[in-house]
Amino acid sequence: MVFMPSGAKMLGLQVAKVVQSKDENYKVGEYVSGPLGWATHSVLNPSTFKDTMHDAKLERVRYTDVPLSYSLTALGLIGATAYFGLLDVCKPKEGETLVVNAAAGGVGTIVGQIAKLKGLRVIGFAGSNDKVKWLTEELQFDFAYNYKTCNVVDALKESAPNGVDCYFDNVGGAFSSLVLTQMNTFGRIAVVGAISSYDSDLMNQPLVPAVQTSFIAKQLKMEGLIVSRYESRFPEAYEQIYGWIKEGKLKCYEHVYEGFENLPKALLDVQKGGNTGKAVLKVK
Amino acid sequence: MVFMPSGAKMLGLQVAKVVQSKDENYKVGEYVSGPLGWATHSVLNPSTFKDTMHDAKLERVRYTDVPLSYSLTALGLIGATAYFGLLDVCKPKEGETLVVNAAAGGVGTIVGQIAKLKGLRVIGFAGSNDKVKWLTEELQFDFAYNYKTCNVVDALKESAPNGVDCYFDNVGGAFSSLVLTQMNTFGRIAVVGAISSYDSDLMNQPLVPAVQTSFIAKQLKMEGLIVSRYESRFPEAYEQIYGWIKEGKLKCYEHVYEGFENLPKALLDVQKGGNTGKAVLKVK
Repeated sequence: MVFMPSGAKMLGLQVAKVVQSKDENYKVGEYVSGPLGWATHSVLNPSTFKDTMHDAKLERVRYTDVPLSYSLTALGLIGATAYFGLLDVCKPKEGETLVVNAAAGGVGTIVGQIAKLKGLRVIGFAGSNDKVKWLTEELQFDFAYNYKTCNVVDALKESAPNGVDCYFDNVGGAFSSLVLTQMNTFGRIAVVGAISSYDSDLMNQPLVPAVQTSFIAKQLKMEGLIVSRYESRFPEAYEQIYGWIKEGKLKCYEHVYEGFENLPKALLDVQKGGNTGKAVLKVK
Repeated sequence: MVFMPSGAKMLGLQVAKVVQSKDENYKVGEYVSGPLGWATHSVLNPSTFKDTMHDAKLERVRYTDVPLSYSLTALGLIGATAYFGLLDVCKPKEGETLVVNAAAGGVGTIVGQIAKLKGLRVIGFAGSNDKVKWLTEELQFDFAYNYKTCNVVDALKESAPNGVDCYFDNVGGAFSSLVLTQMNTFGRIAVVGAISSYDSDLMNQPLVPAVQTSFIAKQLKMEGLIVSRYESRFPEAYEQIYGWIKEGKLKCYEHVYEGFENLPKALLDVQKGGNTGKAVLKVK
């Protein structure tokens, strides 16, 4: 069965084994990852494929002594996004305080773990009490809150009494306006996702408190990033994350669904925030 | 008469002649500038004075072959704000497009002139048709619009068909949310003022369209600044601006009110947007 939804976003990312090849760069038996589609088999031309997919292209799977799915998560774009958004944009210094939202998600779990490795105080926000418990108990976040039930400003006054230095933002919107009021002078913000606005087009965004007064009062710096900007440095991120995984310092959290027939359930769970870590579907 | 309003903001900045001194660093006959108060005479201790005023302190007037008031405007904090906000934060490249608002004000007129010197396409927004005319005819802005009557997005589609690269923001709020939708990839924003929010406290800001989707879509970078951060580099800005003034390349626009008795009128004009260039009050 070959099923190709029309929206490119919906292609997702897959790992596949090369079973036939006319391109000497891709040998039979090797594994590749990329937006291959939800299909048992994909037929593609690596060079044109590269041109039409800007954010994710065909990649040879680099690390085969860890689960192959890691090449879609910690050792793929998810890991690179966490790595560069945190280290290159937020530029944290040991002892500083970081806020990350969608903290139990694919990117958030890696951001939080790298931040702990770098000696930061880590505060996570997620969408259920179970996730909050998991973040503090399993991932060793210093503080975690359910953004649906907490008062964000009160939560930050409790967990970051000396203010927030770095903010890794997957959500945007009103939540971010509140976090910005609690930041320290010269605070840095990486805008990596805007989940809160995904249902709105650019010219019709939700109304939220203006942020400019926070920017001036605290001389904040905020940067939006699409990870493909760092493509030439991906190997640096992957080598570092792979090293942490092998040393047992970083775990790759995946929410695994078994069987192609569970794809609709997996997708709906992602939409509803039902997963912890990156959602991965395993076919036999 | 000595009149010292209670709010520090309301002190303004003044130029004064040293008429008596017990500090060998300040000699009788020299001129100084700073937040001296609306007074015929000020008695102050330069060192403690420095500690209580963070953004403006006592400065020796450096350039005396231009009007002394320039040390309050182009050759003072106003000029430094324009210079560093534009060149250091927006980092414009020749041929790029800049948007500046409050464009007919003290900072805006200098930003626009430096931007033209650097070979940028300059688009200004101001609050009256007279100012708009003055910006294009006198200051040679490429485009200018009355933000009160224009559609900001349509104005930018007309004046910046290839998008906006740099945005020098004195205003913030909903206006900024609109400008951000028209920016180019890797656009830079300097947040220097938030006039639109000055009546609101930090925790009670006006509701405006969220900006995060623009940040991700165009990988924007935005930074708030308070000019005192650049204090060690003020001489660089002043030397450069002084050079441009002497070469006739940059004009220092001041809206001069004569006589201490016109202070209330001058203040009200500033509040109502009645002035072009920086408002300066001359006493005899």
